[in-house]
Amino acid sequence: MSDFLKKHISELIHLTDDEFETVQTFFIKKKFRKRQFLVQEQQPVTEIYLIEKGILKSSTLDSTGKEHILQLATAHWWISDFAAFFKEEISSLAVDCIEDSEVYAISYENLNILCSKLPAMEHFFRIKSNFGYVALQQRILSLMSKTARERYEDFVKQYPGFIDHIPKQLIASYLGVSRETLSRLYS
Amino acid sequence: MSDFLKKHISELIHLTDDEFETVQTFFIKKKFRKRQFLVQEQQPVTEIYLIEKGILKSSTLDSTGKEHILQLATAHWWISDFAAFFKEEISSLAVDCIEDSEVYAISYENLNILCSKLPAMEHFFRIKSNFGYVALQQRILSLMSKTARERYEDFVKQYPGFIDHIPKQLIASYLGVSRETLSRLYS
Repeated sequence: MSDFLKKHISELIHLTDDEFETVQTFFIKKKFRKRQFLVQEQQPVTEIYLIEKGILKSSTLDSTGKEHILQLATAHWWISDFAAFFKEEISSLAVDCIEDSEVYAISYENLNILCSKLPAMEHFFRIKSNFGYVALQQRILSLMSKTARERYEDFVKQYPGFIDHIPKQLIASYLGVSRETLSRLYS
Repeated sequence: MSDFLKKHISELIHLTDDEFETVQTFFIKKKFRKRQFLVQEQQPVTEIYLIEKGILKSSTLDSTGKEHILQLATAHWWISDFAAFFKEEISSLAVDCIEDSEVYAISYENLNILCSKLPAMEHFFRIKSNFGYVALQQRILSLMSKTARERYEDFVKQYPGFIDHIPKQLIASYLGVSRETLSRLYS
């Protein structure tokens, strides 16, 4: 059993060793290089990903070709185009690696079988989904009602130790500010 | 058993009549007048609400006193400050009624007991949480990457028949545009 997967799941629920062994069979470990894509825009989205190592982002391009970042994620975060995954639609987001990354992938079918087989895992994914909702709610309130400086300060708090590993241009895009505004916030 | 509650839950899962009777005991029916608050800012949030009738909004005030609307919701939608509810923190949102409304309330404790008692209800709430996540993701992408006109068109599609029941000022606030910009989009 992967120690990482066991640690990640044990933070929310208790499983026996046998149950952990079962859970692991539903995941596939995958490695990706920096700049490789896990999800491409306008494609079906068949998996969600739990990150063990690395940094990934989910983003979209607007009609002028400008990139907007929905999520920046590292170890113990989940990433995908969840909207496309859960609704079984084609993606409006791309997911790619900012650094070399290792993830655990689970397919839509496996997720549903696992949840019906082990009620504790249904509970796990309910709680995870609630936390994902919470993160997005905070992101919307931040985008709607906070100044660039407040958004930057929230980012630093939410991603401690993260900021030095991500190109400034991506942080600016995540915060919805220009590269020049971000430079002023740094100083 | 409330026909409304039964219909709402049956859209996602199958329960026996006895199970429906059990489910109903976990909810409390509540009625609110236009402008009454279900959740106030900076207070503990002990319940989430399934709307049977009426229109409600969740919103926050920024440091200048301007209102920003996170959610506009009507029959069959769920509303609360979910972030505060799930993390058991004080609220950063207020929830109040745009029209007289009737809701089914469930407490944090009852939600967890119900989910552990009936695995099908844990499944129900996992799927509902996923859909909530999807709605917020679409809202963020819309706020970040779409023009005011595109956001308005999305709103009309997402809330058919809704637009005539909500004051224009609130729609403008939901879309993140000025009242004047909204008037131009109407024309």
